[in-house]
Amino acid sequence: MSKLWHKDYDLNELVEKFTVGEDYLLDRRLLISDCVASAAHAVMLGSIGILSDEEVKALTRELAALIGLFHEGNFEIKRSDEDCHTAIENYLTGKLGDAGKKIHTGRSRNDQVIAALRLFSRDYLFLFMENLILLVRGLLAFAAENELIPMPGRTHMQIAMPSSVGLWAAAYAEELTDDAVLVETAFRLNDSCPLGSAASYGVPLPIDRELVARLLGFGSLQNNVLYVNNSRGKIEAIVLEAAEHVVLTLSKMAQDLILYSMPEFRYFAIPAELCSGSSIMPQKKNPCGLELVRAKAATISASLSAVKSIIKALPSGYNRDFQETKGHFMRGCLTSLECVRVMQLTIEKLEVNRDRLEQGFIPEIYATDRALELVKDGMPFREAYREVGLHLERLQNRNPVEAIKAKKHAGATGNLMLEKTKKAIDEYEAYFQAKRERVDDAITSLLGSRPPFFVFD
Amino acid sequence: MSKLWHKDYDLNELVEKFTVGEDYLLDRRLLISDCVASAAHAVMLGSIGILSDEEVKALTRELAALIGLFHEGNFEIKRSDEDCHTAIENYLTGKLGDAGKKIHTGRSRNDQVIAALRLFSRDYLFLFMENLILLVRGLLAFAAENELIPMPGRTHMQIAMPSSVGLWAAAYAEELTDDAVLVETAFRLNDSCPLGSAASYGVPLPIDRELVARLLGFGSLQNNVLYVNNSRGKIEAIVLEAAEHVVLTLSKMAQDLILYSMPEFRYFAIPAELCSGSSIMPQKKNPCGLELVRAKAATISASLSAVKSIIKALPSGYNRDFQETKGHFMRGCLTSLECVRVMQLTIEKLEVNRDRLEQGFIPEIYATDRALELVKDGMPFREAYREVGLHLERLQNRNPVEAIKAKKHAGATGNLMLEKTKKAIDEYEAYFQAKRERVDDAITSLLGSRPPFFVFD
Amino acid sequence: MSKLWHKDYDLNELVEKFTVGEDYLLDRRLLISDCVASAAHAVMLGSIGILSDEEVKALTRELAALIGLFHEGNFEIKRSDEDCHTAIENYLTGKLGDAGKKIHTGRSRNDQVIAALRLFSRDYLFLFMENLILLVRGLLAFAAENELIPMPGRTHMQIAMPSSVGLWAAAYAEELTDDAVLVETAFRLNDSCPLGSAASYGVPLPIDRELVARLLGFGSLQNNVLYVNNSRGKIEAIVLEAAEHVVLTLSKMAQDLILYSMPEFRYFAIPAELCSGSSIMPQKKNPCGLELVRAKAATISASLSAVKSIIKALPSGYNRDFQETKGHFMRGCLTSLECVRVMQLTIEKLEVNRDRLEQGFIPEIYATDRALELVKDGMPFREAYREVGLHLERLQNRNPVEAIKAKKHAGATGNLMLEKTKKAIDEYEAYFQAKRERVDDAITSLLGSRPPFFVFD
Amino acid sequence: MSKLWHKDYDLNELVEKFTVGEDYLLDRRLLISDCVASAAHAVMLGSIGILSDEEVKALTRELAALIGLFHEGNFEIKRSDEDCHTAIENYLTGKLGDAGKKIHTGRSRNDQVIAALRLFSRDYLFLFMENLILLVRGLLAFAAENELIPMPGRTHMQIAMPSSVGLWAAAYAEELTDDAVLVETAFRLNDSCPLGSAASYGVPLPIDRELVARLLGFGSLQNNVLYVNNSRGKIEAIVLEAAEHVVLTLSKMAQDLILYSMPEFRYFAIPAELCSGSSIMPQKKNPCGLELVRAKAATISASLSAVKSIIKALPSGYNRDFQETKGHFMRGCLTSLECVRVMQLTIEKLEVNRDRLEQGFIPEIYATDRALELVKDGMPFREAYREVGLHLERLQNRNPVEAIKAKKHAGATGNLMLEKTKKAIDEYEAYFQAKRERVDDAITSLLGSRPPFFVFD
Repeated sequence: MSKLWHKDYDLNELVEKFTVGEDYLLDRRLLISDCVASAAHAVMLGSIGILSDEEVKALTRELAALIGLFHEGNFEIKRSDEDCHTAIENYLTGKLGDAGKKIHTGRSRNDQVIAALRLFSRDYLFLFMENLILLVRGLLAFAAENELIPMPGRTHMQIAMPSSVGLWAAAYAEELTDDAVLVETAFRLNDSCPLGSAASYGVPLPIDRELVARLLGFGSLQNNVLYVNNSRGKIEAIVLEAAEHVVLTLSKMAQDLILYSMPEFRYFAIPAELCSGSSIMPQKKNPCGLELVRAKAATISASLSAVKSIIKALPSGYNRDFQETKGHFMRGCLTSLECVRVMQLTIEKLEVNRDRLEQGFIPEIYATDRALELVKDGMPFREAYREVGLHLERLQNRNPVEAIKAKKHAGATGNLMLEKTKKAIDEYEAYFQAKRERVDDAITSLLGSRPPFFVFD
Repeated sequence: MSKLWHKDYDLNELVEKFTVGEDYLLDRRLLISDCVASAAHAVMLGSIGILSDEEVKALTRELAALIGLFHEGNFEIKRSDEDCHTAIENYLTGKLGDAGKKIHTGRSRNDQVIAALRLFSRDYLFLFMENLILLVRGLLAFAAENELIPMPGRTHMQIAMPSSVGLWAAAYAEELTDDAVLVETAFRLNDSCPLGSAASYGVPLPIDRELVARLLGFGSLQNNVLYVNNSRGKIEAIVLEAAEHVVLTLSKMAQDLILYSMPEFRYFAIPAELCSGSSIMPQKKNPCGLELVRAKAATISASLSAVKSIIKALPSGYNRDFQETKGHFMRGCLTSLECVRVMQLTIEKLEVNRDRLEQGFIPEIYATDRALELVKDGMPFREAYREVGLHLERLQNRNPVEAIKAKKHAGATGNLMLEKTKKAIDEYEAYFQAKRERVDDAITSLLGSRPPFFVFD
Repeated sequence: MSKLWHKDYDLNELVEKFTVGEDYLLDRRLLISDCVASAAHAVMLGSIGILSDEEVKALTRELAALIGLFHEGNFEIKRSDEDCHTAIENYLTGKLGDAGKKIHTGRSRNDQVIAALRLFSRDYLFLFMENLILLVRGLLAFAAENELIPMPGRTHMQIAMPSSVGLWAAAYAEELTDDAVLVETAFRLNDSCPLGSAASYGVPLPIDRELVARLLGFGSLQNNVLYVNNSRGKIEAIVLEAAEHVVLTLSKMAQDLILYSMPEFRYFAIPAELCSGSSIMPQKKNPCGLELVRAKAATISASLSAVKSIIKALPSGYNRDFQETKGHFMRGCLTSLECVRVMQLTIEKLEVNRDRLEQGFIPEIYATDRALELVKDGMPFREAYREVGLHLERLQNRNPVEAIKAKKHAGATGNLMLEKTKKAIDEYEAYFQAKRERVDDAITSLLGSRPPFFVFD
Repeated sequence: MSKLWHKDYDLNELVEKFTVGEDYLLDRRLLISDCVASAAHAVMLGSIGILSDEEVKALTRELAALIGLFHEGNFEIKRSDEDCHTAIENYLTGKLGDAGKKIHTGRSRNDQVIAALRLFSRDYLFLFMENLILLVRGLLAFAAENELIPMPGRTHMQIAMPSSVGLWAAAYAEELTDDAVLVETAFRLNDSCPLGSAASYGVPLPIDRELVARLLGFGSLQNNVLYVNNSRGKIEAIVLEAAEHVVLTLSKMAQDLILYSMPEFRYFAIPAELCSGSSIMPQKKNPCGLELVRAKAATISASLSAVKSIIKALPSGYNRDFQETKGHFMRGCLTSLECVRVMQLTIEKLEVNRDRLEQGFIPEIYATDRALELVKDGMPFREAYREVGLHLERLQNRNPVEAIKAKKHAGATGNLMLEKTKKAIDEYEAYFQAKRERVDDAITSLLGSRPPFFVFD
């Protein structure tokens, strides 16, 4: 089938291959979104008299049919199609003739692809948040279970002060809950309908942009038509930033777990079913999943920085450069979700070795506790500090559980306040649940069903 | 004066120079914050009986005095002090003896520096938001003034469709208003008091962390003491991300302005007072400010990526690596503020050349409008598109003002809806105003005055 | 087939999917390299008596057969194989029994994958250099052809001084010739055989590493077995850096061409066959190839920065993190090659519009020439500069061709010295030709044929 | 004093502050270079009759005097000067009148600043290489001294196979020697004289660019005048890339040392004089220097990526964006040198704890050695591997020294081949020594003395 812009010349083959790039493959992830957005667009064109009721019905029916074909593996986007938008329009024109030729009235591929990406991102964020919440709940349960299991606290990777497995796990639960703020912000900015901005400058037709936004379940309409096109890449960057922060948190958690499961520590044991072996060394059980979480943080950062570098100093209005953001964005989304799920599984299966943890409590770990005892007896802290520091040999072993119970102020080992994080997470869950229902209702009303716009495979 | 941790050996000179780095210089920007946070800490230590009322009063008085000395240029942080924290403790001990030696009870430099950075960031965000709002208001005024001045709309930098100076300016006003969401998110996450987490593991004293948070005007207490230390660099990254998005938006605006003030366009003129000359070419007036805004987007991105790279996969608890985030963070904050102010000035002074703008309206710019007229006459869009595309020579010139008025749907040239953005900006202003008052009240109560924690110089 | 390390437990399905990732797909690009490297390893094992002559012959025969199967599309790496190394060993064991089970003696997947990557990189660099040389020759021809076509020289994007199309094209030819130095450096560092380092610590067998290096046509043996494994990612980064510099140069060239083919300039015309259209605007011919070259510079930078971020601060010895560098590396290589080819085609087809170029010569462009005339008459330069600058209205139009001829010093418009660059490029061509022959000879001796290790598709 | 381009209007104060930025401070590091380059330029202007012999002598004398003033701390670049170039021209004009006003004939600040940066980089690279060689020699000595000290070899941070302290140190010596290839490449590309390219388009004067190149001791002349200006930032990026690779290598070394000096390992001890303490924990001795080396790798990567991001897709010819590369470049150079010196000191002082190293040799470490013994007895490797893997409990402890001696092939623990690296390093030393002599001779001839263009302070 021909390209949408085909007129009277053919594109050079090398340039065609280069400009299409992997778009025709990536667009498998956008095809359903674009079908659904096209259905909403058709309904709106009907409402302003550009399409007849019959045309709207026929288009909606064929778009639903196309989704079905695609799900069954019977619809393919070919390189010669360039992208899903062309493939869909050609399919509709093939099936319906003039109605197909009319579907593009009042829109451009520019706003179409942004709309498809927003639907994709929206479902990605729903799924990402769902898994993030599972992970936080897993960490909270793990923290509660191991609340009073002592763990050497470190700074500079050296032995510092008494700590606990509970504090360690709860620290990550809280950090991920802060990261969820970023996910929510990204959701909010992404939840804005771009359709009707067309190539970047709107159209001289009385299109009803608010209607399309409502039909697709968006929270708002993105107003300025030039800004809509300028925001390509930008919203993707904001979504990836939230994902990146989560995975940066996981990279730290992975580093801790890799370190503390080394034979010299064995604070934690990662069960064999989560470990790969070596091709040459018969004894190896390697924490490969965690190593890859650590490495994949770099992949997400790179995806994000590619997107931002592409949009930096780009003149306003649509530029083809935007296309290059698509692969980076999708790769970042998929990778971040994988990492959260692997970490959730790891925490679920992680074994805690209390003996080894307690063996880490060498007398020096109590140096600060000792100095603060001298303070309670009236010695100024700086003197107590020097006194203890110059006579470390006088430090004695203590009961580590008593030491961690003794820190009772907010957020310390003796007072983790897990319920605070639990409450925050409950609120996020409710917030996203409400948004999800709004979306489900809108899509079901429009199409009679609710296909997923993001698939994790 | 000696280092806080000095006991019985001296640090190698090369290593001392390396580890202190530029900290003793950067800390000039944190000294006031640390004095104020120390005053709050002292009040709290008084409330739990570690310090007497006299000691609290003496410490508060001397901290206020030290701020005065610093403002007058009579207090210096020396390289041998390592940082502002040491300089302050040494000053207090020099003035007050034992009360000075007690000030560090129940805290560590780790939570101290985080607290000082949060106060610095908070005031930076107030000032940044204030300037951002000024810029958005400037753009809205510029858009209103030039609402119906035609401007060739471009995609791929080629002539695309009729647009207007109003649409162009309003696009940036809206984009910056979306960026403000990120500033607000950063503010929220930064607005959490870290004090009392000490080295990363709390202390065995009944410290009242909530009280300190209140005294410093924080919106909340950051709970888990290990998370507090793990969040070093992270909150800075989130703040820089907001700044980066703003400056990425400005880099696009700068690119547009540099382009459209070239002699071949002259859509806009940048007045001479904003332009530098050349050392060799007598005729040159160069848009250097805009070029540097464009370049400085890279600086902020680099600052941010340094911070994130430093915290990636860093084991939990304090690590000295964190120190290296400080310079990047401060540089990013200062740079972003400069860019916003220069752009605000540029928009204020920018001259619009209506003649040149209208000359850009070649007949081809109306190709899409023409195709959509054929659609109104009943031709399916795809056919109308081909019809027009194959006979471009038939296109005629039109009245550009009519063309931009004809796009009346939401967000298009004939319907900018500037009031929507104005309303959003009013809300941000009110939000930050309220936060600022809360902070001003708290600091004034604590200290009797309200010194700035962030200075733009 | 089972994994190489399979013993008595099964890997969790989610973790398996995560750890295998896209490796089984990416490894289609390494399979031939690994077959060839395995053949060299087998010959060496024969030379030290670990394999019999029959076993060596059988293995070599089956490896050649496997390459044939793969070329015909009859060999697939399955996700359950994990990677090409497993697929190959399993194939050999299936075909040959014990000989297959022996092939892994004295090696590890760690050094295997490094070897396969080096062979891949080597052929990539041959092909990349070949195309780079074509591009430079194209630019030199274009410069020669347009040596005295005037072109407004710009600084700050403003009109600066007289320049020429020849100077413009020659500047890029020279820059790419400097970039070739980086390609050659990357080639040199990559041209070092890693085999025999095994997991990172060598083996207690008298393996002959020098022999393997020779059989595979490497220029040297990479000595320290731990360094070999530490250099994973590092050599890839160095290769990508060369590619990145080339594409950064192309991004600048693309920006110039996009700019100077705008309707306001039309210095250059990009023929329609290299331009794509718009889905909505009938008149558009967009320089999409150039826009994507500009954008893809960000992709290569991101690939590179991912690789460097992954290896940063990674403990020595093999870590699974390395696997994540593979996709980034391959993506960077393929992208850079595409960009060079598209640019080469663009320069070949580019049309020069002399009229429009000359129209850009407004009187101000001669301001510096005029000031230097005053200097020749004895006025100190700074005074001449001010004199001209304060009376720009006195400047008159001149003959632009005379103006560019008048700059006769080395490297200026009147003296491009193209032969210097041509000579440098001839030397690079000869250098790489010699290396390529060495490699072709070695591989042909080993295997009886010379399959490509890098395929551009 | 006035700006070089000052004519009839004043720059807005905010814009002036913004555009000057920190240039007037950074240029303290370029002032001497610019004086020397100016002297060479004056001599050349004399040779073509633009300056009289007296003027040349007077200018050379005053430039030498200015260097003296600057060394004594009696010359300052003020913000109102903008940069060192202006300060110097103003100084010369103040002292000499017309001769000063003539010095800028045939050059621009654009080529001046590039020349000053090349001189700066050249001396930086001399010093960097000198320190790098010292570090490699230190590592080779350390490797020789600890050649047969056993050390558990790890992959995935888990116990893998027997290794040695010698192998560990020699791995880094070899890696840094590969990094030196990049330093040499950077030197070569930097060693090219840019002067005479002026604003980007040369000048209509018969300037002798080759003479200037020779007078300044450059290895070659950078030919195309537009390329010269396009290469701003590019050469800096190539220099920083070499520095970055070195520091990435150091970041790995630092990570190893931090890890292996933890109390659970104590393979190595870092003497107290290289460690800082804690403000709260009396017992702490922290490897702060190594942590900062680890962190500073991110700083250098960020500096580099800022430079590359600035030059990406920048239109050809000078753009003010280039100025923003200066601070990043200088910061990267200084930081990299510090890191090399700290690491050199650390290796010099590092203590090896043989007992703890040997205690790491648990029976499993010999699993691969055992499997290969079975191979020697005729069992196919894959069977031997499974046999050992399923009966790890049968593995027994061995003599670790014998185990590391037993790996005798090239580059293994029993055959480190340190002399190979020593030879390569000797060659680098000789290469750079020769270049340095060439430079010293040229500068001394020109000026009568040889001031340093790069100062490490």
